[in-house]
Amino acid sequence: MEENQSEQFTPLSKLGEFGLIEHLTKRFPLRNGSSIKGIGDDAAVLEMLDKHTVVSTDMLVEGVHFDFTYVPPQHLGYKAVVVNLSDIYAMNAKPTQILVSIAISNRFGIEFVEQIYDGIRLACDVYDVDLVGGDTSTSYSGLTISITAIGEAAEDELVYRNGSKATDLLVVSGDLGGAYLGLQLLEREKSVFEVDKNMQPDLSGNEYVLERQLKPEARKDIHELLKGLDLKPTSMIDISDGLSSEVIHLCKQSKTGVQLYEEKIPIDNNVYSLCEEFQLTTTTVALNGGEDYELLFTVDLSDHDKIKGNPNLSIIGHMTAESEGMNLVTKDLKSIPLSAQGWDAMMDKKA
Amino acid sequence: MEENQSEQFTPLSKLGEFGLIEHLTKRFPLRNGSSIKGIGDDAAVLEMLDKHTVVSTDMLVEGVHFDFTYVPPQHLGYKAVVVNLSDIYAMNAKPTQILVSIAISNRFGIEFVEQIYDGIRLACDVYDVDLVGGDTSTSYSGLTISITAIGEAAEDELVYRNGSKATDLLVVSGDLGGAYLGLQLLEREKSVFEVDKNMQPDLSGNEYVLERQLKPEARKDIHELLKGLDLKPTSMIDISDGLSSEVIHLCKQSKTGVQLYEEKIPIDNNVYSLCEEFQLTTTTVALNGGEDYELLFTVDLSDHDKIKGNPNLSIIGHMTAESEGMNLVTKDLKSIPLSAQGWDAMMDKKA
Repeated sequence: MEENQSEQFTPLSKLGEFGLIEHLTKRFPLRNGSSIKGIGDDAAVLEMLDKHTVVSTDMLVEGVHFDFTYVPPQHLGYKAVVVNLSDIYAMNAKPTQILVSIAISNRFGIEFVEQIYDGIRLACDVYDVDLVGGDTSTSYSGLTISITAIGEAAEDELVYRNGSKATDLLVVSGDLGGAYLGLQLLEREKSVFEVDKNMQPDLSGNEYVLERQLKPEARKDIHELLKGLDLKPTSMIDISDGLSSEVIHLCKQSKTGVQLYEEKIPIDNNVYSLCEEFQLTTTTVALNGGEDYELLFTVDLSDHDKIKGNPNLSIIGHMTAESEGMNLVTKDLKSIPLSAQGWDAMMDKKA
Repeated sequence: MEENQSEQFTPLSKLGEFGLIEHLTKRFPLRNGSSIKGIGDDAAVLEMLDKHTVVSTDMLVEGVHFDFTYVPPQHLGYKAVVVNLSDIYAMNAKPTQILVSIAISNRFGIEFVEQIYDGIRLACDVYDVDLVGGDTSTSYSGLTISITAIGEAAEDELVYRNGSKATDLLVVSGDLGGAYLGLQLLEREKSVFEVDKNMQPDLSGNEYVLERQLKPEARKDIHELLKGLDLKPTSMIDISDGLSSEVIHLCKQSKTGVQLYEEKIPIDNNVYSLCEEFQLTTTTVALNGGEDYELLFTVDLSDHDKIKGNPNLSIIGHMTAESEGMNLVTKDLKSIPLSAQGWDAMMDKKA
């Protein structure tokens, strides 16, 4: 539970003006045919042929989005890529390239930044994307990492937020609330550690929620599963701010209402037990927790059989006419209006 | 010479989680046919048809790249876009879209951030590019802005850094050294102001270098001029770190040498007179000053007539065999080896 500086410390200045970026990026091979030219010119060059290009960007700020007290640098690098790729999958597109910009204060050594890039490289390996550009800069305090992700999809494969219609089924991948509880756990152990530096963190048995927070995955597998099922969602979004907030986005942009069934929301056992420990309501955590990076989508009623019984997918409700409103149907069958209460820092919002 | 806060101060928190980005981006129309979907989904969607896609990213950090003591927020927004577009033009491509991420501390109000976006919007107007995505976040200190620029070019229009050959002419647009002297001037007046807050800055007669520093332009006109002349450079780069550094990039990547003639380097009169005032050598400033955002390129010898006499272009040397080295031929015809000594903050380097 100490700052994850590696043992060696080589000042960033050691590598000189052009050395650092070359040093950090030399072990990144290009693997996608669409990556015509990567790092080393004024810009990267891509060739999307007859595909559409999909682009998204996300910025993570130390102290706001992550805390090096408990986030190892490799995990930061990995997660920073994953949260961007998740946006590309949410368009039903395949991510192909990333650009990475980092501003770093001098309190970090080259070894530390190398570890961040180790995480970035692992994500590139796992998700088959190419690092094709970026920028490194000094900062006066802390570390900021900004990633742009690019992907490709045929025009008729793209899925927007605004395509759902009344009677469509509402489906979510995986389970919800884990990332939020992972964060609560890490924050609690940090407080304990700050009071008594000899305290060792007690995280055993909670590996699942910790991994959901520290090393989340984007649902590449769901993207491929949908393709395999020949199933094109009518609308889709990824869950970064929380289920409730994302459901509202789909409804507002599609001009529909929704009936969301509390008892259908998929929750892991680790989340149930920790909610008890932290005296939190499971449903509130699942609705507002955020950072789960699951895919939330709607499908036509006629696609019910393709979804039914799939262990990776849960049907959690259905869309209605806009006039019927956006409602959560509780376990005791009461209908209450959905509201967005993301846990994220005020105004940390993506365009 | 005071902090350019506007008179009103509305805290960023006022607009709520989703309000700020919507508020800031609502006045950005899409104008390029390739912008299929802009802000408002998980990602933007672009259609480049039979063109190649060109992508570049740059991050500007308060205190490292700009100082709000003398940089008005509109100018910051404008310049942040321009420096990115300059990279796209340096590929001989046409910029079409940008994505803008900003991390902002609470000491800034909504009005201040609006002014940054006013500058971004003006740049979008002038350069015909669409804002299609981005991210806003809080930061604990200062302001960081990260922009990704996207452009398009037919495959056979693209110009890389590595295409020059011995005997090619070395050409630069505009004139050099102005942006560096603009910065020296602003820093000097800031020091004076810090000693005596009643002091008014004395900047008259230096409008040219101030504009070069505070509101630089990317050479859209040169991109169009080259097209009009049916002239495709053999290699090209934009001048962000300094002429010397960029010439070395072209040589190293093209595996050529160079003869650069000191007396041919284009210098504005404002730069001459300020160099005298600051007791700086004009050539050193032009070679190492940086931030001029001019285009440096090489053309085949047979294209000499297309360049000759054009007031926007100066032939400053020619490429040689790699074995002949990279040399500056001084006004008294001595040949000295070129070296890169960018003035930029250590390790502030773009991939």
